[in-house]
Formats: sequence, structure tokens, C-alpha cells
Amino acid sequence: MEDYLASFQKFEKTLQNFQKGLSVDCTIIGYKDHKLSILLLKWKKVGSWCLPGGFIFKNESTDDAACRVLEERTGLTNVFLKQFKTFGSMERTWNASKSNIALTDKMLKMIPVNDFDLVSDWFKRRFISIGYYALLDIDKCETQPDMFSEECRWFPVDELPDLILDHNEIAMDALDQLRIQANFLPIGINLLPHKFTMKELRLLYEAVLHKPLDRSNFQRKILNLNILIRHEKKLTGAQNKAPYLYSFNRDKYEKALTSGIGLFSV
Amino acid sequence: MEDYLASFQKFEKTLQNFQKGLSVDCTIIGYKDHKLSILLLKWKKVGSWCLPGGFIFKNESTDDAACRVLEERTGLTNVFLKQFKTFGSMERTWNASKSNIALTDKMLKMIPVNDFDLVSDWFKRRFISIGYYALLDIDKCETQPDMFSEECRWFPVDELPDLILDHNEIAMDALDQLRIQANFLPIGINLLPHKFTMKELRLLYEAVLHKPLDRSNFQRKILNLNILIRHEKKLTGAQNKAPYLYSFNRDKYEKALTSGIGLFSV
Repeated sequence: MEDYLASFQKFEKTLQNFQKGLSVDCTIIGYKDHKLSILLLKWKKVGSWCLPGGFIFKNESTDDAACRVLEERTGLTNVFLKQFKTFGSMERTWNASKSNIALTDKMLKMIPVNDFDLVSDWFKRRFISIGYYALLDIDKCETQPDMFSEECRWFPVDELPDLILDHNEIAMDALDQLRIQANFLPIGINLLPHKFTMKELRLLYEAVLHKPLDRSNFQRKILNLNILIRHEKKLTGAQNKAPYLYSFNRDKYEKALTSGIGLFSV
Repeated sequence: MEDYLASFQKFEKTLQNFQKGLSVDCTIIGYKDHKLSILLLKWKKVGSWCLPGGFIFKNESTDDAACRVLEERTGLTNVFLKQFKTFGSMERTWNASKSNIALTDKMLKMIPVNDFDLVSDWFKRRFISIGYYALLDIDKCETQPDMFSEECRWFPVDELPDLILDHNEIAMDALDQLRIQANFLPIGINLLPHKFTMKELRLLYEAVLHKPLDRSNFQRKILNLNILIRHEKKLTGAQNKAPYLYSFNRDKYEKALTSGIGLFSV
């Protein structure tokens, strides 16, 4: 309980060091067992779920703020993290709807502050939030909640609960952006073992694109991208039916990250 | 001269109605004669060139602010306008470099204000800017400068002058995003005549992608998208060599705008 009070007192003192009216929200997309999940936080006492987010220090770039949030929640650095959209509609202001007002009131009650007006003024500003998304390997994360939350949990992308404010919209937009990315930039490095089968790569793409892909069409398109190295066959019982193993050609993968692999760039 | 003074006095009064530390910058990309250009403004007295931009009213969404800037500069509404990136590095603050400081000083001298401190405080904030881009037909625009600028002019994309702050980076990022878009979403409606030849469509794509495209590969890929309707041949002298005319199938074009036309979505 002391930690709880102390962390909020520290937060209260820190408020003046943040950019007013601006936040970052991170849609952290995890891959495991051929499925995508999103990391959510459950607010203390209020009980609502939300995306991990935070404020931006006055002397901090917006990208650094997002990296800081990602690292604090997952322990990971040097992960693919992309800014995709800034959310600035009037519907997301604290007083735009009854539910927004109720949420703000509940949240303010949860915070054990010294100067209620200061903290209330802060959260009753109009907030414009910069959305980022990350795609990472769930097994590499050590997740932990922030000072406002009591739990963090991975939710399968098609089983998200109702989130606060426009966080459901932010998460869906992030998934759309990831799908666009999969059509335009290579994905897979850091998500698959060093050597993988064509089926493992296809299952990743199926999870990201959220649809089944024709086996032979997929193989043809991926091989045409010229970013894979073919290795020996995977050792199984029946050698003649064993699938080939592949790895990414790092140089060509990096080059494709710059030049794109889209319809007119192949 | 009176207008000049009056417009700034009005601006000074309006300052309190804007979100602090936030702006929008619009990269307005025009198409004409198979070439892309970008609309730039030349600052009064300072002489520097910049992208059209503006502030966001407290009761206005960020998208509406960008639409307002676009309409004021081009006279156009209902144009494809897309938010693509928010620029929030520390290098773009007014005091991050000698050139930024000099620019801010020059600009403040240009403004005939009543309350110098008020206006100075405003422009010496850290600004985080939300970037939008539009792609439109130059012949449909009626461009006009804003109160800070004496001229607006279209510059070919590969002949941009040095722009203020990070505006060259913003413009280049916008062009990159447009190229990604061309690989993932259909383009062409509102930029070509209702009926057009395959060559006219290819020249548009070549301008956007900034590279030559193989004639037959392009035709095959575009026809595979299944968004074109083929009409009669264009009347020229030699009927056997006359090219076919095409138009967009509006329904299929709209559908492709939602579903995408990328590598794995065709």
C-alpha cells in the first residue's frame, strides 16, 4: 500500500514535466502458437481494460516515449515499434459522453492525490493520443502492469473485451496497419525460429492477415520475394515427405524493409 | 497593409482558442502533365518556404483542422486527405538549433503584434505536428497563400527548395506513404479523365512510384486487380493501333479501397 501511495505522489510531482494534452498508446501485438494477441492492462479499482500508454516528457521525443512504455510493459527493447496514427477526434475528450465522464470520475477517485484539483485538471484536458504498434514474440516478454493497473494479460485479437475510450478502435486500426505492412514489408524475423518450414511462415501470415492462404500460391509469392535461403530438409520419419527448412537472408530482408515488396515493387 | 495588421490582430485574439503545442502540416501533392508537384508557401518578409499548415481549435478534431487547411489553400473539399505520421522529435523545437532560433526570431519580427510576449510564448513552445497528405488534380485547385505567406507555388517533387524546420523530411515521408498506398490501394479516380488509356494510367503510376514501369507487366497487374472497365478504342488515325479506353468500375474501386490490393490481398 505504501508503494501505491508513493508511486502516485511521485506521479503527481512529475505531472508538470509532461507535455499537456498529449499521450501515446501502444497496441502491443504478440505472436504465439500461430495466433495473435494484444496486451491489455486492467485498471486498479475501476476494473476497465485499456491499452498500455503513457505521457510524453517535455524533453522526450514521441518515439522515445512509446519505446519507454513498450520496455516498461514487456522488458523488450529494439523491437519493431511503429507509429501508425494519431487519434484526435472530439469524441475522445473526457466530457464527450456520459461514459467518458463516468470513467474520468471513477479514475480520479482511484488516485490517492494530495492536490485533487491539479490531477483533476490534468485528466480533464482534451487528450490527443499518438498510436504505435509493435509485433513481437510473446515468449520473449516479461510483462508487468503500470502504476494505474493491477494486471496485464494477453487477449486473442478476436476476443478483446470492451476497452476504455476509443481503445478498441485504436487496437483495430493497429491490426489493419499490420496487415497493410504484411503486404508491403517482410515480416517474420524475431517471430520464427532461425530455421523454419514454409508451413510455419504461412501460419504466421495467416495469423497476421486473419485469413487462410492457399498453400502453393503463398509459397510461390514468398519465394518470388527472394528473401529466403533454402536449407536441408527437416528431419522426420519419412525423408521423402520431409519439408525443407528456410531462414531469412538478412541482407535481402533488410533491403526489402527499405524498398518494399508491394504490387509494383517486386 | 490594413488587412495585414487586421488579420494578425485577429490571429492574436484567436490564439487562446487553439490547442497548445500542436499543429497540422499538409503535404499537398498535385498531379499534372504526368508529374507530381508539392504546394509550398513563401513566408512574408522572412522569405523561407514551408508546407501549408495550421493550428487546431480546441473544439475541432485534428482531421477537421487538416481539411480546413486544405480547403483554405486549394479551395477543394472532399479530396483524399490522409493522416500519415506525427512529427514529435526534439530536433524540431524552436531552440534545438541555431537555425531554428534564427527562424523563430525572424518570424516574430514579421508579426505586427500588440502583445509580443503572448505571441512569442506561443511560437516558442515545443510543437508536435500531425502530418497529412493529399493527392489531387492541380487544374482543379485555386490556390491562395495564408496570412503568414505572400505566395504559394507548386514545386516539382524533385526540385523542392530548402524548407523550414523538418518540412523537407515531412514532404519526403508523405511521398513515401503515397508510394506505399499505390502498392496497396487503388489510385487514379479524380486524377484522370473519366475515360483514359492504359498508357495514361501507367504514366500516373510512374509519377507516383517515381520509376519507369514495364508496359506489359503493368497492364497485366492492373487488369488482374479487376477494377477497370474496358470501352471502345480511342479514335485515332490508325484504327488497328488505337489503344483501348478504360474507366474505373466505381463499385470495385471502392471495395478495393477497403480490402486493399496488396501482395496477399489480390
